[in-house]
Amino acid sequence: QMPRGNLETIHHRALVLAQIRKWLDRLLFKEAFECMRKLRINLNLLYDHNPKAFLDNVDLFIKQIGSVNYINLFLTEIKEEDVTKTMYPTHALSTMQSSEGAKAKKVDIVCDAVRAAMEKWDPQKFCLSILTSYVRRTIPQLEIALQKVHELRESPSTTIVSADEALKYLLFLVDVNELYDHSLGTYDFDLVVMVAEKSQKDPKEYLPFLNKLKKMETNYQRYTIDKHLKRYKKALSNLSKCGPDYFTEFLSFVKDQSLYTEALELYPHGTVEYKAINAAYGDHLVSKQQYELAGLIYARCNSIEKALDAFIASGNWHQVMCMASQLEYSGEKIAALARTVAGKLVEQRKQADAAVLLEQYAEDYEEAILLLLEGAHWEEALRLIYKYIRLDILETNLKPALLDAQRNHMILFDNQKTTFTRHKERLSVVREMKEKARLGLLDEDVTGCAEADLFSDTSSIMTASDASGKYSQSNSRISSRSSKNRRKAERKKHSLKEGSPLEDLALLEALAETIQMADKLRGDVHNLLKVLILFEYDARAKELQQNFDDLLLLFETSIPEIWPPSVQQNTAAPILGPHSTANSISISYQHQRNVNISMQDSELFTAPKLNKNIQWKLSLLL
Amino acid sequence: QMPRGNLETIHHRALVLAQIRKWLDRLLFKEAFECMRKLRINLNLLYDHNPKAFLDNVDLFIKQIGSVNYINLFLTEIKEEDVTKTMYPTHALSTMQSSEGAKAKKVDIVCDAVRAAMEKWDPQKFCLSILTSYVRRTIPQLEIALQKVHELRESPSTTIVSADEALKYLLFLVDVNELYDHSLGTYDFDLVVMVAEKSQKDPKEYLPFLNKLKKMETNYQRYTIDKHLKRYKKALSNLSKCGPDYFTEFLSFVKDQSLYTEALELYPHGTVEYKAINAAYGDHLVSKQQYELAGLIYARCNSIEKALDAFIASGNWHQVMCMASQLEYSGEKIAALARTVAGKLVEQRKQADAAVLLEQYAEDYEEAILLLLEGAHWEEALRLIYKYIRLDILETNLKPALLDAQRNHMILFDNQKTTFTRHKERLSVVREMKEKARLGLLDEDVTGCAEADLFSDTSSIMTASDASGKYSQSNSRISSRSSKNRRKAERKKHSLKEGSPLEDLALLEALAETIQMADKLRGDVHNLLKVLILFEYDARAKELQQNFDDLLLLFETSIPEIWPPSVQQNTAAPILGPHSTANSISISYQHQRNVNISMQDSELFTAPKLNKNIQWKLSLLL
Repeated sequence: QMPRGNLETIHHRALVLAQIRKWLDRLLFKEAFECMRKLRINLNLLYDHNPKAFLDNVDLFIKQIGSVNYINLFLTEIKEEDVTKTMYPTHALSTMQSSEGAKAKKVDIVCDAVRAAMEKWDPQKFCLSILTSYVRRTIPQLEIALQKVHELRESPSTTIVSADEALKYLLFLVDVNELYDHSLGTYDFDLVVMVAEKSQKDPKEYLPFLNKLKKMETNYQRYTIDKHLKRYKKALSNLSKCGPDYFTEFLSFVKDQSLYTEALELYPHGTVEYKAINAAYGDHLVSKQQYELAGLIYARCNSIEKALDAFIASGNWHQVMCMASQLEYSGEKIAALARTVAGKLVEQRKQADAAVLLEQYAEDYEEAILLLLEGAHWEEALRLIYKYIRLDILETNLKPALLDAQRNHMILFDNQKTTFTRHKERLSVVREMKEKARLGLLDEDVTGCAEADLFSDTSSIMTASDASGKYSQSNSRISSRSSKNRRKAERKKHSLKEGSPLEDLALLEALAETIQMADKLRGDVHNLLKVLILFEYDARAKELQQNFDDLLLLFETSIPEIWPPSVQQNTAAPILGPHSTANSISISYQHQRNVNISMQDSELFTAPKLNKNIQWKLSLLL
Repeated sequence: QMPRGNLETIHHRALVLAQIRKWLDRLLFKEAFECMRKLRINLNLLYDHNPKAFLDNVDLFIKQIGSVNYINLFLTEIKEEDVTKTMYPTHALSTMQSSEGAKAKKVDIVCDAVRAAMEKWDPQKFCLSILTSYVRRTIPQLEIALQKVHELRESPSTTIVSADEALKYLLFLVDVNELYDHSLGTYDFDLVVMVAEKSQKDPKEYLPFLNKLKKMETNYQRYTIDKHLKRYKKALSNLSKCGPDYFTEFLSFVKDQSLYTEALELYPHGTVEYKAINAAYGDHLVSKQQYELAGLIYARCNSIEKALDAFIASGNWHQVMCMASQLEYSGEKIAALARTVAGKLVEQRKQADAAVLLEQYAEDYEEAILLLLEGAHWEEALRLIYKYIRLDILETNLKPALLDAQRNHMILFDNQKTTFTRHKERLSVVREMKEKARLGLLDEDVTGCAEADLFSDTSSIMTASDASGKYSQSNSRISSRSSKNRRKAERKKHSLKEGSPLEDLALLEALAETIQMADKLRGDVHNLLKVLILFEYDARAKELQQNFDDLLLLFETSIPEIWPPSVQQNTAAPILGPHSTANSISISYQHQRNVNISMQDSELFTAPKLNKNIQWKLSLLL
C-alpha cells in the first residue's frame, strides 16, 4: 500500500530508513538495496551508513546484489555527498567514523573497491560494471576502459560481452568526441579506428589524419597526437626524444607554449640544448620584465652581455659587476658602467650601494663620499674621508651636511608634533560627538560642523626638502621617508575630511602612521647625534635629542588616550551599566562586532608598538 | 550660641557656608573672614570660591582685612587643595572656572597677588606679611626675604617693624639652619652674621669659617660657599671663573662630582681646558663601560690612541679605521688591526662588516670571501670572487656553502613545521579542556593529564648546527637566528609544560614566535634561491621554495584557527545566547576583561602579521 499523505510519507520513510539501517548493520545488502530502489532512497546510503563495514564486506555486497544493472545503478548514483549528513541525518553516533577517510575521494574509493571485488568474482560477467567503475571515477580512466574493450576484441571467444556491446555501452556513458580523443591518447590506432567507426565521424576526415600519423617516427607521432590533444607537456617530452634534428621545432614549440622550465628538465645541464633553452627563457623573461631572473638565466647559458643588461635593468648591481668582470671590461669601461649603475641606485635612494660602486670601480672617492653624506651614512663617509685622506671634505661638505640634517630633523619633529596634536584633539572631538549621537543627545546633521576648520591645512605636513638633485648634498633620508609616506597616504581607505563617516578611523590611521614613522627614526637620530658630538656640536645635539625625546614622550603618553583598553578590545565601556538589559547589551555588542568585522580595520584598534628597547639617546646630552 | 550636636552642626555649617558665599559674592571679605575664623572654616575658601573675583579684588581684600596677623593667618593656611571640591563641595557651577588657572600653582598665585597688593598699599605696615608671602611660596624665596630684613637694618628709622623683629619672625617660620644656609647662599656676610647671631649657633664655630671665606677671592669664595651648600653646579661655574691657576682643582672637582657635561659648557671649544675636560670625561665613560661615547669624546680632544681602543671595545669598526688613519699606522699595523676587529665582528655574526675590513685593510680577499659565504651574503661574495678573479672559490667553497645553506633551511623548515603542528594541536586540546572546565563538565584535576606526553621533546626543536668555528664555512645565518630565539625563550613568561595554568598563553606565544621567525626568512630564502638557480641547482631550489611555501601556507591557514576573531577581540561568542541574562553577560564580560587586563598579555591575542608583500618566490620554480 502506497503512502497517502505528506505526513504519513515522512513517517513511513523514517521507519523504512530504520529498517534499512538494521539490514545494513546485519550486512543484508540485497534486502536493503531492493527496498531502497523501490522507495527511491538514495543508494549512497549503502556506503555512507557505515563506510568501513561496506569496504570490509564489498565482496559480500557484490555477491548479494549479483546484477550488472544494479551495480551500474549503484555506481552511477554514488556521489561525494554523505547522505547520512544531508538527506538522511541521524543522531551524532556515526559522525566520528565517516570523517576519517576524508583524504581520498569517496567516489574513487567505492569505484575501486567494487571493481576489485568484481574482478575477483567474475570479470566476464561484470564486464560492463567494471567499465562503469572506470568511467565514474572523479577523473575518468577512459584509456583503461578503452583498453579493456580492446582486449575483448582480441579474444572474443572467451567473453560473455562482445567488444561491440562494450564499446556501445561506453559511448552511452561518455561523449563520443571525448572517447575518441582518449583513444588517440593511447597511441593505439586499432583502438582509435574502433571508436571512430562507432562514432558518426566521417572516415574521409579522420582516416587521412590517422594515415599521416602512422607514417611518422614513434616519438614524433606521439608528439603530434599530444599536441593535437593539447597535452603540451607530454608533447614536449615526446618531441625531446626525437633527437637533435628536431631541436629547432622543439625550441619554437617551447616558446609558443612558454614551457621553459619543463623544457629545461628534459636536457642535462651543460648540453647545447640546455643552454639554448636558457637563452630563449631569458628572452622570454625580459619580455615579461622579469629582469633579475632573466639575468640569472642568461648567466647560466653564458650570455653574459645579455645578463649584464638584464641585471642593470633589475638594479642588481652586485651581479652587474660580476658580469662586467667576466666580460673582462677595461678599467675605463668598468668605471663608466659603475657610474651608470650608481646613478640608477641614487634615484632609488640607495646611496650606500652607489658609493661602493664609485669608490671601488670608478675610483671616484670624492663623489662616493658626497653620496654617503647625501644618504646620511655619516660613519661610512668618515671612513672614506680618512682612508683617502680627504680631510678637506670635513669642512666643505660633512659639517654643512650634518647641520642640514639636524635642521631637517628639527623641522620634521616640529611638524609631526603639530600634526599629531591636531589629529589627537580632533579625534577626541569626533569621539565625543559620536558618543553624544549614540546617546541621542545630538542631531545627526550637527556632527562635524563644530570643528569645520580644524583640518584646513593637513596636506602641508611634510615640508622636508623635496628638491634633492641627483648628486646634491641635501641630506635625503628624511625626504625619502616622506615620499614613502605620501605614497602610503594615497592608499588610505578612510577620509580625514571632517564629518566623513569614518573620520575617527582615518584619524587613528594617521596617528598610528605618525607614531610609526617617528619611531623608525631612532637609529638615524642616534647616528646623527654621535657625529654631532664628535664635531662638538653639543648644543645642536642636545636640542635634537630633547626634541625627539619630547616627541616620543608625547606619543607614549598619548597612546593610552588614543587607544584606551576599551578601543583596543573594541568594546566600549558604556554598554554595561545599571540600566542595561540583556537585550540592550546583546544588541550593542553584536552591533560593535559587526561594524568591526565588516570594516576589516581591526588593526587600527591596536596601538602601535614603540621600539623602546632601542637605546638612541646619548647620556652626554641628558 | 554654640551648636549642641553633630547633626545640628552640620546643618548649621551648611547655612553658614551659604552665608559666606553670599558675602564673598558681594566682595564682603571682612565679614566672611571673621565668620570663617570664628567657626574654623578653612580660609582657602576665600580664594577657591571664586579665584578670578579674588585676584581681581585682592586690593580690596587687603584693605578690608587690614590686619597683619589676619593676612599671615590666611597665607599660612593657603594650600594647593581646592576646598570647593573637597571640604565644601557645591553643585557643578564653579568647576569650569577653577580648572583654567591650573598651570601656575595656586599657592604661588595667591602669595604673589597678596604681596603685590600689600607692597602697593603699605609695605611698612605689612612687612611681616610680605615676609610670610615669600616664605609660603611652594619654593620659598628665602634669599629675598633675608634681603628684605637686611634692608630694614640698613634704614631702621623709616620702618615700623625693626630688622630684629622681622628676623625673629622669619626664624619662627623657617628652620634656623635652613635660613643660615640661605643667608650664606646670598654671599652677603652681613646677612650671614645677622642670622647666625639670632640662631643658637656657636660663634666659635661659624666665625672662623666666615673669616676664612672673607679672605678669599670673590669667585673662589662663592665656589667654597656653593660647595659647602652642596650647590655643585653653581660651585663649578664659580670655580671656572677663578682662572687657569685653579683649573687642576676644577678638574678634580668635576671628576669628584661627575659634572663633565656641565664643565664642558663652561669653556669654549678648542681651549686647553675644554680638551682636558673631554679627556677626563672619556676616562670616566670608559670606567662606566660606555665605550662608544668615550671614543667620541677622546676623538674630540685628540686622544686618538685612547679613542681607538674605546672604539674597538664598542665594536664601532668605522671609527676604529678612522682613528687608525689619523694615527698614520703603517700598512702592516693597519692590516693587523683590521684582522683583530674583524675577528670581533665575526663573533657578533657581522660577517659582512668583517669582510670589508679584510678586503680593504688587510687585503686578504680569500678570507673576506669566505666570511661572506659564512654570513650567507652570496651576491657580495660573488662580486669579490669576480673582482679578485678567484673563480676557484666557486667550486671549493661557494657551491658547498650554497648546498649547506639549502640543507640547513630544509631542516629548519621541517623542524618548524613539526613544532608548529604539535603546538597547534595541543592548543586546541587545551582550549577544549578549558571550555569543558568552564562548562563544569570536567573535574579540575583531569585537566592536562590526557595529553601528558605530547610535549616530551619540545626542547630539541632547534637542531641547526651550533658548531660554527670562527672562520668556518658553515652557513651561520640560521644558527644566529636560533641562538637569538633561544635567548628569547629564556625570557618567556609562561610555561609550556602541559597542565600549567597559562599553558594556552605559552602556546600562543610559541606559535607566534615560530611564525615570526619563519616570516623573517623571506629575504634570505629569496637570495638563496637566486644563487641556487644561477648555479643550476634547480631541483634543490624548487624543493626549498616548495617547502618554505608550504610552511608559510600552513601558518597562513592556521592563523584564523589559532587567533579566531573571538580570541583577537578577547570576547568569546558563548557569552551571548538565548539563555543569557543581563547579569550573566555582564559578569562573564567583566570577568574576561579583568583576566585580560591583569595579564598584560593582550599582544598574545593579536595574530602575528605576515609580510605577504615580500615577493620571495621565483616564478621559474612555480
